[in-house]
Amino acid sequence: TRTIKLAVIPGDGIGPEVVEQANRVLDAVLDGGDAVLERTEFRLGAERYLDTGDTLPEAEHAAIAEHEAILFGAVGGVPGDPRLTDANIERGLLLKLRFDFDHYANVRPCTLFPGVASTLANPGDVDFVVVREGTEGPYAGNGGTLRPGTPAEVATEVSVNTAFGIERVVRHAFETAARRPRKKLTWVHKTNVLVHAGAVWQRIVRAVSAEYPEIAVDYMHVDAATIFMVQDPARFDVIVTDNLFGDILTDLAGAIGGGIGLAASGNINPDRTFPSMFEPVHGSAPDIAGKQQADPTAAILSAALMLDHLGLGAEGDRVRDAVRADLAGRGAAKRSTAEIGDAVIGRLAPRDAGAHGDAGAHGD
Amino acid sequence: TRTIKLAVIPGDGIGPEVVEQANRVLDAVLDGGDAVLERTEFRLGAERYLDTGDTLPEAEHAAIAEHEAILFGAVGGVPGDPRLTDANIERGLLLKLRFDFDHYANVRPCTLFPGVASTLANPGDVDFVVVREGTEGPYAGNGGTLRPGTPAEVATEVSVNTAFGIERVVRHAFETAARRPRKKLTWVHKTNVLVHAGAVWQRIVRAVSAEYPEIAVDYMHVDAATIFMVQDPARFDVIVTDNLFGDILTDLAGAIGGGIGLAASGNINPDRTFPSMFEPVHGSAPDIAGKQQADPTAAILSAALMLDHLGLGAEGDRVRDAVRADLAGRGAAKRSTAEIGDAVIGRLAPRDAGAHGDAGAHGD
Ligand SMILES: CC(C)[C@H](C(=O)O)[C@@H](O)C(=O)O
Ligand SMILES: CC(C)[C@H](C(=O)O)[C@@H](O)C(=O)O
Repeated sequence: TRTIKLAVIPGDGIGPEVVEQANRVLDAVLDGGDAVLERTEFRLGAERYLDTGDTLPEAEHAAIAEHEAILFGAVGGVPGDPRLTDANIERGLLLKLRFDFDHYANVRPCTLFPGVASTLANPGDVDFVVVREGTEGPYAGNGGTLRPGTPAEVATEVSVNTAFGIERVVRHAFETAARRPRKKLTWVHKTNVLVHAGAVWQRIVRAVSAEYPEIAVDYMHVDAATIFMVQDPARFDVIVTDNLFGDILTDLAGAIGGGIGLAASGNINPDRTFPSMFEPVHGSAPDIAGKQQADPTAAILSAALMLDHLGLGAEGDRVRDAVRADLAGRGAAKRSTAEIGDAVIGRLAPRDAGAHGDAGAHGD
Repeated sequence: TRTIKLAVIPGDGIGPEVVEQANRVLDAVLDGGDAVLERTEFRLGAERYLDTGDTLPEAEHAAIAEHEAILFGAVGGVPGDPRLTDANIERGLLLKLRFDFDHYANVRPCTLFPGVASTLANPGDVDFVVVREGTEGPYAGNGGTLRPGTPAEVATEVSVNTAFGIERVVRHAFETAARRPRKKLTWVHKTNVLVHAGAVWQRIVRAVSAEYPEIAVDYMHVDAATIFMVQDPARFDVIVTDNLFGDILTDLAGAIGGGIGLAASGNINPDRTFPSMFEPVHGSAPDIAGKQQADPTAAILSAALMLDHLGLGAEGDRVRDAVRADLAGRGAAKRSTAEIGDAVIGRLAPRDAGAHGDAGAHGD
């Protein structure tokens, strides 16, 4: 038996509800197999901050680092809560984990599953994945303010882009494209305006591209990419882009891929020097928290990405197939968070159906 | 008679074709009125650069500044043209004009006109305007590179945000909202990540908001704004945002508002210290240039914004009404650039119909 140490950070709002269902699906899909999860739950997020003033204490940071993977719900309090004005849970917890654990490939698939209504009139066959850089760019946290609060205030935000950081995520994107049938890579930036960062991206994409002659590469400015995303999303296969453009494009992708309630993500450290982290793209949605109204599908699909990362791709596929079957049969009925979890579990194909059949023939 | 000095920069690709139609519509709508246009054409853009090496010579810069307004087509050569690698016509010409002429309110309306097919399944009643900051933020042109071309390269892009610059565009947006029936303002940023710039935006929106109690204000992160833009665009009335977020959101808005061939913009200097500049949001589209395939509607609607700015709002309305009538009757037939210009001119209501009627009664 392989014991996988999993850190679970349910977080705020709908985070705990959707993570609960993801965990149930994980147990169900692993049941009867070689791997078992050994979970440690970490209570972190806006609620914890309001209780104790802590965002991410060092001891917990160190403890989380000892796990093989992290399952993350969502963090963030009620928008405008004055007690959270100075907190910035996003920077202090979520982005801190991404940066400290070197999650440089923020992987966000976008598939419009059969049976799912799209916000687009003619979406076509949508099936692409965005590889968003996760550890630099405009998210570097660099910048400051001069003469704060005065009419002469100047605030800067510095996007820091390194050849080192760009090359590794671009390589990851080419590897991703190489494993997919269409073998297309679109890189997105704003090279005509952000000329310094744009030049490094361009140089590196060209250089790495030479090592992957089988992959067709094109470029789009980020503004144009939003147009293609709503006019012809089926054209995309793999997209690679910087941290901020990736943030924007993946929310848009979530919306056209059937809604943000279905959008999964993995914050991947491909070098495995620290645990990777899997989280739905959606936020904590405090307005519907605790009401069993949230769709846990994004969290469940994020858990499937985690299974892939842990070398349990067959289990990941079983989860995705179950979600696909559930979505195809959903219709218009409203279901609770737990009911959707139940339904996905009910759709899980038996473990290794072929082997089971054999075992049965042997009278097992 | 009022003589209006108009600088015309047709530019590259489809720029000259669409500007030609906008000019024809301008002549038609002004015909028989008090105002006449005195045009000076400036040949600037990628083609000019390839011919002469010039991007924006000082004498032409100074000459353009002497005009009351600028009608701009589009600039940019064939993507990937190696002779343009070091040119950056966008920064050296288009952005230079926006910055030097202090076009701090980049105004981009988005209306889904009746009869126009939308890329969205259920667009609803789309009618909003984005006020994009035009003179600072990530477009400041600040940044640089260390160890260029090496594996240790570091490139920065510095977003520069001033209370001065933010306040004036925020005020312009509130003024815009105050003149519209719904009186709603949505400001868009990414305050949870870009905390320094975000804080200045927040402080200023709050402060100016206190002067406009009749205007309902809400805030959205830019990623969330893209979701609302495709799921419920009818919720927006006026959006105000920074230069880069505005660039991205207005291309997306163009796509959902019937396509980028209809999207108009005004680069406005509300203080009138320099000429404002009116341009379609679309680019030069070299692939279809010279074929009379481009839709001149965006350029024509940009000319209507110019008429408004010049105090000729009645003429601006006549142009918009003509475009609206043309779009309602378009159907699926393909028309050439000039045919669309003809059609819009044909739809122009007679000048001051009431007065004409009167004049007729007086035997005129
Ligand atoms: C919560 C926020 C900091 C985060 C981001 O900007 O990366 C979120 O929008 C996301 O996309 O995961
Ligand atoms: C051409 C480019 C520099 C420009 C911009 O980014 O502002 C364009 O995309 C626009 O929106 O007008």
